Amino acid sequence: MTRELHLNAFLMEAGHHEAAWRLPESIPGAGIDVQHYIALAQIAEAAKFDSIFFADGSVAQGTGEFRVPGQIEPLTLLTAVAGATSRIGLIATASTTYNDPYGLARRFASVDHASNGRAGWNIVTSATSEEAVNFSLEERPLQATRYERADEFLQVALKLWDSWGDDHFVGDKAGARWGDPSRLRRIDHRGKHFQVAGPLNVPRPVQGYPLLVQAGASEQGKAFAARYAEAIFVAHQTLEQGQAFYADMKARAAAEGRDPAHVLVLPGIVPIIGSTEAEATAKARELDDLRIPEYGLRQLATILEVDEGDLELDAPLPRAVVEQTRREGFDSRSRLVIDLAEREGLTVRQLLGRLGGGRGHNVVIGTPEQVADTIEAWFTQGAADGFNVMGAALPSGLVTFVETVVPLLRERGLFRSEYAGTTLREHYGLPRPANQFEAEGAQVVQPA
Amino acid sequence: MTRELHLNAFLMEAGHHEAAWRLPESIPGAGIDVQHYIALAQIAEAAKFDSIFFADGSVAQGTGEFRVPGQIEPLTLLTAVAGATSRIGLIATASTTYNDPYGLARRFASVDHASNGRAGWNIVTSATSEEAVNFSLEERPLQATRYERADEFLQVALKLWDSWGDDHFVGDKAGARWGDPSRLRRIDHRGKHFQVAGPLNVPRPVQGYPLLVQAGASEQGKAFAARYAEAIFVAHQTLEQGQAFYADMKARAAAEGRDPAHVLVLPGIVPIIGSTEAEATAKARELDDLRIPEYGLRQLATILEVDEGDLELDAPLPRAVVEQTRREGFDSRSRLVIDLAEREGLTVRQLLGRLGGGRGHNVVIGTPEQVADTIEAWFTQGAADGFNVMGAALPSGLVTFVETVVPLLRERGLFRSEYAGTTLREHYGLPRPANQFEAEGAQVVQPA
Repeated sequence: MTRELHLNAFLMEAGHHEAAWRLPESIPGAGIDVQHYIALAQIAEAAKFDSIFFADGSVAQGTGEFRVPGQIEPLTLLTAVAGATSRIGLIATASTTYNDPYGLARRFASVDHASNGRAGWNIVTSATSEEAVNFSLEERPLQATRYERADEFLQVALKLWDSWGDDHFVGDKAGARWGDPSRLRRIDHRGKHFQVAGPLNVPRPVQGYPLLVQAGASEQGKAFAARYAEAIFVAHQTLEQGQAFYADMKARAAAEGRDPAHVLVLPGIVPIIGSTEAEATAKARELDDLRIPEYGLRQLATILEVDEGDLELDAPLPRAVVEQTRREGFDSRSRLVIDLAEREGLTVRQLLGRLGGGRGHNVVIGTPEQVADTIEAWFTQGAADGFNVMGAALPSGLVTFVETVVPLLRERGLFRSEYAGTTLREHYGLPRPANQFEAEGAQVVQPA
Repeated sequence: MTRELHLNAFLMEAGHHEAAWRLPESIPGAGIDVQHYIALAQIAEAAKFDSIFFADGSVAQGTGEFRVPGQIEPLTLLTAVAGATSRIGLIATASTTYNDPYGLARRFASVDHASNGRAGWNIVTSATSEEAVNFSLEERPLQATRYERADEFLQVALKLWDSWGDDHFVGDKAGARWGDPSRLRRIDHRGKHFQVAGPLNVPRPVQGYPLLVQAGASEQGKAFAARYAEAIFVAHQTLEQGQAFYADMKARAAAEGRDPAHVLVLPGIVPIIGSTEAEATAKARELDDLRIPEYGLRQLATILEVDEGDLELDAPLPRAVVEQTRREGFDSRSRLVIDLAEREGLTVRQLLGRLGGGRGHNVVIGTPEQVADTIEAWFTQGAADGFNVMGAALPSGLVTFVETVVPLLRERGLFRSEYAGTTLREHYGLPRPANQFEAEGAQVVQPA
C-alpha cells in the first residue's frame, strides 16, 4: 500500500487565531456551543478527514476580558459529536496528572463504545502551576514525577482495557450464561502511584485501546511518546525542524521495539488561504489587526513565567528570560517561543504577531497550491505523516481548506476520497492491539 | 398551583429484574448499547416524564458469568441521550469519593450546557470496599470521612459553578471585550480535603447548578440530603415506611432553613402490569422463573458482606449476620434487606425472590388501575412527591407503564400532559439558584 496522508482537524472555539472571535461571522461564545462543533465535525467528515481533536487544560486562562477562558469538557463534546457523525475519529485531551486511571480508562472506553470505535486520547501531563492549584496542590509536580505517573497511568489503563477478553460476552439466554467468567480478569496492579484491582466496569473498547496520541515535545515527552504514542501532534516552524523531529521520533520508536510506521507524526499547520497571495496576505492582516496587544503580552508572560512588566514591546526578549528558560528546561512551548524569537531576531511585538496566529504552529499564508505544496513537501521529505489542520477562524478556515486544498491533495494522489475503514485506528492505518492477557507473541504496548 | 406528580425513569440495561436479560425480546448486552438508552429516553420524553436516571458504581460486580457487570459511564451516556432528546431531564450518578471537584463540576456544567439546562447529579459516596481497591485504597473510607468529604466537595462545586457570573459574557467584537472580568472570580477554597483556586474553566451552568439528587438513606445520607438534595431517590416496601421517611426528610430540610417543597421525595416502584391481576402475576412469575439462584445468592452475600457458605437457601438469615449488620450500621441497602427478611419472616430463598425483582424497591404487581392507585395513595398520603419508575424489563416495562398507567394518572389530574418549562429544574418546580457571589439575600444552598 502506498503511504497515505492523514488529516486531523484541530478545533478550537471561533478559531486558532487569538482574535478570530472578533470577525463579523464568528460565534464569540463558541466554546460552549455544541452545534458549532457538530457543524465543524460534519465538514471534516464530509472531507474524509481522519479525525477531529480538542485540546484542553484544567484552568480558566486569562481574566475573561479578552478571550474565551472556558469550554465544554472535551470528552463530553466528543460524545455529543459522536451522535451527529458516523465515521470521523474523535480525539480528546485528558491529563494523567489530574485524573485517576480507573475513571478515565472507563470514560475513554465508554466513548469508544458510544462511537463504534472512533475514540482517541491525547495524553497530557498538565505542565502549569495554574492547573495544580485547582487540584489541591501548591504548585505543579516536577516534570519527572508527572511523566513517571503518566507512564504508570498508561500501564494501568492498558491493563484495565484488557481486563475483559474481546469475546467475553456470550449472551446465551437459554443457557443462563451472560458471559464467560474466564475472560474477565482482575489486574491487581500494585505500583508506586496506583494500586488498582480491576476489572474495569465496561467491556474492552471496540478498538482494543483508543488511539493513543501525545503532543509534548520535551525530552521526557518524546521518551513517553516513543513508548506509547501512535500519533504525535507537534509544532514546528521550519521543514528542517520537522525533519529532525520526525527522524528522531521514528528512531526512538524503533529503539523501543516498535514499528516506526505505527508512530505517526502530525505537525500543526495554520493555513490562511486566498485565491492570490495578496488576498491571503490581506486576510492574515485583517485578523492581525483585530489582535489586542495586552492580551498577547499577558499570554506570552504566562508561557515564559515572567511578569508582564519584564517584557518591552519594541525590544527583544530580555537576555535573562531567555537564559532562565533554557537553563530550567521549561516545557516545550516556552522553548519553542524562545527559539522562534532568537532564530528570527524578533522584538516582543513581532513575536506576539507570530504567536497570535497559531500559538507557535506553522502559519502558512498563500494560495491553495502553495498550501498544498507545503503539505506535500513535508509529507514527501520526511517531516510529516499528516497534518493537524488548525483553522485560523472557524468554520471559515476549515471550509476553505476543505474546498480548495483537499481537492489538490487528492489530484496529487496524497489523500483519500473515501474512508476505507470504520474505526479511528483504521483511518490511521494502525492495528487493533491484541489483549496482553490473551495474546501469545501479540503486539502489546509495553512500558519500559 | 396544585401539587404535581413527578416521574423519573430509572434506566438499567435490559431491566431492573435481575433475569430481564433472559427474556426473548431483551438485548442482553444493553449496558453498552447507546441506541437502547436513546430509545428508552425518547419513550419517557414522549410521555412527559421529568427525567431519566442512571445509577453507577466504580466496580465490575460479579464474575461476568450471570449478568452485565459493565456499562457505559453515565455522563457519557447522558450526553449521547441529550443530542437525541430535547426536553427530558438527564440525571447521572457520580461519586464524591472517587472524583475531584474541579473535574467533576466541569463535567456536569458541560452536560448542562450541552443539553440546554437538563443535567442532574445523583451524588453518591461509594460505600463498598470493592470500589476502594480500584482507587489505590486498601478498603473503603469510613462513612463519616466519606460524608465529610462529600460535604466539602459540594461546597467547592457550588463555588466553582458560581465562579462565573451569569452575565459574564459580553461578546462585544467592536469593543474587543469578550467578557466582563469583574464577573469571573477565583474561589480560593482552602478546606480539609480540598484546596481549589478557580475559577472553573466553563461558564455557569444553564440551570445555575445541575439538579442535586441523593439516594443514601443512612443517617449520614439523610443529613447530607437535608442540606443539599433537591430530589431524593429512596427504596421503601410499605406506605408507612414511605410516610415516615417523607415526614422526616421534610422536617430535616426545614431545620436546615430550606423550603421543604424544594426537597422532592421519589420512592422507587417496579410495576409489573397485566390487564388482569392474574396476567400480571403470570408475568412476574415468568421473570422469576428465569432467575439464577447462584447469582442472587452471590449478590446477597456481597450486600451483607458475608460468605455465600454462611447462607442456607431454605433457612432464615443467620442470627449472627442480622445482628452484625445492625450493630455495625452498614449501608442503607443492607439494612433494607435485613428489615425485609425480618418483617416478613422470609427464608433466604424467599428473600432472593423479593430482591431479584427490584433490589429492595417496591414491586407492584397488578392492573394499571392498581398501580395508579398505589401511586395516588403514596402521593396524596404524604409518602411521595413522585416516583422513580423502574421497568422490570426494558423497554417493555416502561412502554406498558406509559401506555396504561400514565393515562390514568392524567385522568386523575395528577400528571402533566405537556412540559411547562425547558429545564430539568423547571420540570421539578425548583428555582434556579442565585449566584452566591452575586446575590443579596439569595437562596443559596449553603453547607452547615
